[in-house]
Amino acid sequence: MKDSPLSTQPYKGTRDFFPEDMQLRSALFNRLRQVVSTYGYQEYDGPMLEPFELYASKTSDEIVNEQLYSFTDRGDRKVAMRPEMTPTLARMVAAKANNLPRPIRWFSIPNLWRYERPQKGRLREHWQLNVDILGPAAQDAELELLQVAIDLLRAFGANETHFEIQINHRELTNSLFNEVLQLNPEQRQAVARAIDKRDKITPEAFRELLVKAACHDEQIATIERFLHADLNEVANICPESSGLLKLQTLFELLTALGLSAYCSFSPTIMRGFDYYTGTVFEIYDRAPENRRALFGGGRYDNLVGMFGGEKIPGIGFGMGDVTLRDFLETHGLLPTLPPASQVLVGLFNADLKIPAYQLARDLRAAGLRVENILEPTKKMGKQFEVADKKGIPIVVMMGPDEHAEGCATVKHLASGHQEKAALGDLPALIQQLLA
Amino acid sequence: MKDSPLSTQPYKGTRDFFPEDMQLRSALFNRLRQVVSTYGYQEYDGPMLEPFELYASKTSDEIVNEQLYSFTDRGDRKVAMRPEMTPTLARMVAAKANNLPRPIRWFSIPNLWRYERPQKGRLREHWQLNVDILGPAAQDAELELLQVAIDLLRAFGANETHFEIQINHRELTNSLFNEVLQLNPEQRQAVARAIDKRDKITPEAFRELLVKAACHDEQIATIERFLHADLNEVANICPESSGLLKLQTLFELLTALGLSAYCSFSPTIMRGFDYYTGTVFEIYDRAPENRRALFGGGRYDNLVGMFGGEKIPGIGFGMGDVTLRDFLETHGLLPTLPPASQVLVGLFNADLKIPAYQLARDLRAAGLRVENILEPTKKMGKQFEVADKKGIPIVVMMGPDEHAEGCATVKHLASGHQEKAALGDLPALIQQLLA
Repeated sequence: MKDSPLSTQPYKGTRDFFPEDMQLRSALFNRLRQVVSTYGYQEYDGPMLEPFELYASKTSDEIVNEQLYSFTDRGDRKVAMRPEMTPTLARMVAAKANNLPRPIRWFSIPNLWRYERPQKGRLREHWQLNVDILGPAAQDAELELLQVAIDLLRAFGANETHFEIQINHRELTNSLFNEVLQLNPEQRQAVARAIDKRDKITPEAFRELLVKAACHDEQIATIERFLHADLNEVANICPESSGLLKLQTLFELLTALGLSAYCSFSPTIMRGFDYYTGTVFEIYDRAPENRRALFGGGRYDNLVGMFGGEKIPGIGFGMGDVTLRDFLETHGLLPTLPPASQVLVGLFNADLKIPAYQLARDLRAAGLRVENILEPTKKMGKQFEVADKKGIPIVVMMGPDEHAEGCATVKHLASGHQEKAALGDLPALIQQLLA
Repeated sequence: MKDSPLSTQPYKGTRDFFPEDMQLRSALFNRLRQVVSTYGYQEYDGPMLEPFELYASKTSDEIVNEQLYSFTDRGDRKVAMRPEMTPTLARMVAAKANNLPRPIRWFSIPNLWRYERPQKGRLREHWQLNVDILGPAAQDAELELLQVAIDLLRAFGANETHFEIQINHRELTNSLFNEVLQLNPEQRQAVARAIDKRDKITPEAFRELLVKAACHDEQIATIERFLHADLNEVANICPESSGLLKLQTLFELLTALGLSAYCSFSPTIMRGFDYYTGTVFEIYDRAPENRRALFGGGRYDNLVGMFGGEKIPGIGFGMGDVTLRDFLETHGLLPTLPPASQVLVGLFNADLKIPAYQLARDLRAAGLRVENILEPTKKMGKQFEVADKKGIPIVVMMGPDEHAEGCATVKHLASGHQEKAALGDLPALIQQLLA
């Protein structure tokens, strides 16, 4: 009967959110919610388990074969824990496509699961803000999503010295690959993948990948020139590209909205070559020690096609909670959190517990967050220690004389200020001490 | 390559939360959070996946063998999707037992999974508010949890005509079983189970279960008398019971706090006979057509024992989101929800899009929730239709003349009221129309 005690550790690669961590998580998520809702985005959610087939076709092979948490349920259905939110979004939009007024502006903060080797910034589960606008073909949907992305980080006090958005357009890359370089489909895939890896490898290794993709010297020179080009120079390389025009328009609008300092053109941004069809972007941390993509997104053209309905274009991005927290920590931008409880109502002795509980009830009714001491202590000091340990800034104590007078004594722990007041005056006095 | 289209339905027994459902879910959860935080309860969360062993020992056999979503991960660890939150709570408290100031007041709103046959009010996943206080042996912790439970429902406008709390004490049941009836352990189990089922079966079937448990006529008569007794009558049946005294004290305190109309003694409340050790309670809907337990809880004595540390007594309850929603619906107490977006900024023509986007940006900065029209329409009426379909109460439109004057026209759709105003005056005007 006597087993060895169970481990208190959470499952590998996952996190326990103790109250302090949870308070931070909620503060971050609520601020994200607040920002996206000012743009009219509405929150949705779907179940953590989805039919396996939902991921089998569209999600990358690496995720499905190596990282998906999938199993067979007791009714012999193959199911999976969601590794990303987009398939659920697509399923839900397809289910009600005809009844949803356009454009569809939706967001979600799902918990997502992938079987990964846990390491800094990479866990087996995380939470991810997903913001998507579906319906408009107009390029200005991109503008709106970029505004949202910028406002999300600005809401925490970040500015253009902390992050930047690098923007590219798939049609521009396509012009380079198809019209200028005239690559065949296999070459396009290989060159796209090489560009995606370029940041993490040496220039020689990059060149080698291009050679392997059967690019000749002149093509390689053009690729190199393209990857270092600004928009003017790109206009020389791919003068006919529809993507170029769209990018120029987008940057004009960003400038008109006062956001040009946050945004730059970057021909190296690739992101899921098969998946995105228009604008693609990545948000980069500008901190030299943390220079990496925080999150990104782009335009996709046929999100709900696998459900057989109409094609609905969309643009979206996803931002992970671990990445966001790291970013804010790096720049000293984590929000400061208020104390969970504001008032501890002490217990002078067992005879006075009813008035103490009534007092706490009345303070709560006045909107305060109040804890009661539930067991008398020999020394009153013990109760002040509890307040101190719990970080409760104010203790209210009612002895027999005070009770007889209809009063209580309020002590503000940080300042040591102590004051006797009539019960009816307590809420105002406490609010004043908290301010 | 051409597969038949995928189903748009969610996995059986689960729910999609489209924006309207999600808005309600968030409104309910946020109100619950608000109430429990006035008592100093802090939110925590743990991972959706836990080691299988966490449930193997303490969770009921029915759940583990028939309802648990468990599988083996890619690293050959047996894991389970949490069917209840208490084991996670116990694990987390045990992990930091020495560093957590007492009493521990924690709550969580986890998503929980059980493989059940889906039916009304019973799904394969639900969300459940869990409220627990750990540490105090004092009976007044019960009082506090009952206050919390009552305030949770009162926060939605429910009162004593809508629900009641039925309270019992395990020590009282034990006195009956051990001292008065002198049952052996098998009989105790069988009689407890019979009492638990009593509501759902005929009096004859109930009597038959007691006979099967080898109770003789006199014992059966005593049980029947006990099950119909009030506290005074119980004092005659079990005069020596420690549970009786505790219940009497509890009801005195409830009366002092003005809560007696919500609470009654009920000797029939059993709840997990093996699990609870002290006070047990269930919240009942008083609606005649919906007369059933909404949620319940009680005192347990050794929550964290299976992790090998100190014993920590606790009291807790769990309230499911489906049940809560049904209760509020039955009584017409569902909260009315504000419109997601407050303002639609129209687009007069493509030339005026920059000022329209700037206007929307400025309204957002003033705290309003604002959507933009991103594509010009031939007829302006189309844009008003969008506002109508999306339930956006106000449309702001800026034509070329208005733009030249630094003005815009505001239309309140419900009243038809229309007014031209300077851009700087728009936020105040809109707030006034929304109020």
